[in-house]
Amino acid sequence: MTAHTTLSIDAMGGDGAPESVIGGIAKVAGHDPDISFILHGDGDVVAKALSKHPALNGRVDIRHADDVIEMDAKPSIAVRRGRKSSMWKALEAVRDGEAQAAVSAGNTGALMALALFCLRAAKGVDRPAIAALWPTLGKESHCVALDMGADIRADAKDLVRFAAMGSEYARIGLGIERPRVSLLNVGTEENKGRAEVREAAEMLHAIPSGQMSNFQFTGFIEANEITQGRADVVVTDGWTGNVALKSAEGAARFVGENLRDAFTHSIVTKISALFAKPSLNRLQRRIDPRRVNGGVFLGLNGLVVKSHGGADATGFAAAVDLAAGMARENFIERLATEVEKTLDPDQGDVMDSQTSPQDPEQNV
Amino acid sequence: MTAHTTLSIDAMGGDGAPESVIGGIAKVAGHDPDISFILHGDGDVVAKALSKHPALNGRVDIRHADDVIEMDAKPSIAVRRGRKSSMWKALEAVRDGEAQAAVSAGNTGALMALALFCLRAAKGVDRPAIAALWPTLGKESHCVALDMGADIRADAKDLVRFAAMGSEYARIGLGIERPRVSLLNVGTEENKGRAEVREAAEMLHAIPSGQMSNFQFTGFIEANEITQGRADVVVTDGWTGNVALKSAEGAARFVGENLRDAFTHSIVTKISALFAKPSLNRLQRRIDPRRVNGGVFLGLNGLVVKSHGGADATGFAAAVDLAAGMARENFIERLATEVEKTLDPDQGDVMDSQTSPQDPEQNV
Repeated sequence: MTAHTTLSIDAMGGDGAPESVIGGIAKVAGHDPDISFILHGDGDVVAKALSKHPALNGRVDIRHADDVIEMDAKPSIAVRRGRKSSMWKALEAVRDGEAQAAVSAGNTGALMALALFCLRAAKGVDRPAIAALWPTLGKESHCVALDMGADIRADAKDLVRFAAMGSEYARIGLGIERPRVSLLNVGTEENKGRAEVREAAEMLHAIPSGQMSNFQFTGFIEANEITQGRADVVVTDGWTGNVALKSAEGAARFVGENLRDAFTHSIVTKISALFAKPSLNRLQRRIDPRRVNGGVFLGLNGLVVKSHGGADATGFAAAVDLAAGMARENFIERLATEVEKTLDPDQGDVMDSQTSPQDPEQNV
Repeated sequence: MTAHTTLSIDAMGGDGAPESVIGGIAKVAGHDPDISFILHGDGDVVAKALSKHPALNGRVDIRHADDVIEMDAKPSIAVRRGRKSSMWKALEAVRDGEAQAAVSAGNTGALMALALFCLRAAKGVDRPAIAALWPTLGKESHCVALDMGADIRADAKDLVRFAAMGSEYARIGLGIERPRVSLLNVGTEENKGRAEVREAAEMLHAIPSGQMSNFQFTGFIEANEITQGRADVVVTDGWTGNVALKSAEGAARFVGENLRDAFTHSIVTKISALFAKPSLNRLQRRIDPRRVNGGVFLGLNGLVVKSHGGADATGFAAAVDLAAGMARENFIERLATEVEKTLDPDQGDVMDSQTSPQDPEQNV
């Protein structure tokens, strides 16, 4: 029997909120009996949206929040003025132990800034990171990629911590016992790339193999190799990760649009589309971004999952399922252990903790 | 009538060289009567490969070169020891005025390092850039993106020069009279992104509109928006551009592989594939990367086009066609005029020329 899980949900975040959010938790409630929700948002609006989902009766606790963080709000403004927002309240419930994880489809930069302020960075972590699942042709069909945009900078030590944190996510989220970790670079030779990436590689090579038993460092990876499944964890800074992720999204969408055009070109191609439909539907399911929706915030004292802002109910449900799964695996505690291991004093100043100021203005 | 064009070709560069290279120029020779080639490489090997293409009789001048730059050679080693290579000889023929452009499918980093050394950076240019054509859903079906990997760094002034150089390429290569230029960023708000990108945006906004008449600056663009055709020129540093380009390649390939799987799943899907074939072929042609093969080196005293290392004859022919087209448009001279305009003294220290050392070790 699974222990009961309570999730704290920002009902007002995302383009389709609150309908997409509440539709999403209704889907999860339908297949997951051991879960209940605290819903933060405008009481009347939330109650109205809830009335369409009788299956949620008795499983939802509505908490009124006066404000909503706008999708284009500056993170610094959100931190200064967002204490009455549904997003902040959702995080507070995690901080106060009422819920095991928070889920929001709101403004990413604001969510990370508020989460840092509310939950604080975990011990030994200077920069939290956003980890995403990246579709691959590999056996596991996904790899973990981070940082996808928590902070536009990362120094060598941050990258090494990302390696440890991402590995723990791959272990729990993808069931890979000893993940292969690679650093994203513009070439695979040792002499290539930015200084911090080369330095991180040296540090990862220098970690005694006993200590690194929870992952294996496999060197550099180029961006075109990610989908080939050459690594289980791809580590980069938040600027590069965000560009890589969005570029891949753009390319996939481009091929998809052209595929649609190819099949609607003429009467003959439209008929061929009827025959091809099962194949195309199979493809659609395989690469449907909604099925792997959810960026996990790593390196905070609490579990936060960010759903895509444009997610519909199916997409939001995927983010909620992910949060519930991670919560049940005691992800935050296990992550803390891994980070401490990487910070082991035996390693000397290789991972000597260093504090860099967090400036929410600089966040993505 | 078109003036006669002579192109200098590195016959030994690329995975399929010299066959793919010579197959490529044979294709070009077939549809372009006003062109001849200087072929640099191992005399015997080149002559043997040429013997299969009688159409090239009388249009090729073979120049023996003792060495070949390996695909994994370090740029610094190539500069020190590459003076007898086919790649160096190909560049030398451009420097000495024997040919109007050089084309190579060899090692990108080595080619840029050798080209910098042989041809030198153009007046007012601190960092040359590699420009690629990026497929979009827009009217022109491509945009110009740079830097795709000449140098992993670029400061604000470099980015502004890239804007001017990329615009000239868009004007000549895509026929866009007044290209829309955007800076790649992780968000579209003014307060987001790296310092040099925000600074470049301020500089581009500050250029008097009369002076900028050859392009219009349209602000920031995110990587997922490139394929949507929102900009005619996308400007970024070589690290970010290289990651974005390769990530897009990986994603497109991923969708393609899954498409193949979807159609070979069972007997029924295989039959549906027969009906879908014309549509799929149309898609293939539309997104065939071979059709737009060729990275143009911008900011040198001479025209150099880099073909993809894995290009086959069709791909190499596209790079040669591109080089011939640019040579006929006097691209290098027009580019120099544009860069000088951006460096106009009226602008004061906004574009005050600054020299940064070129370190080939740091090149991509």
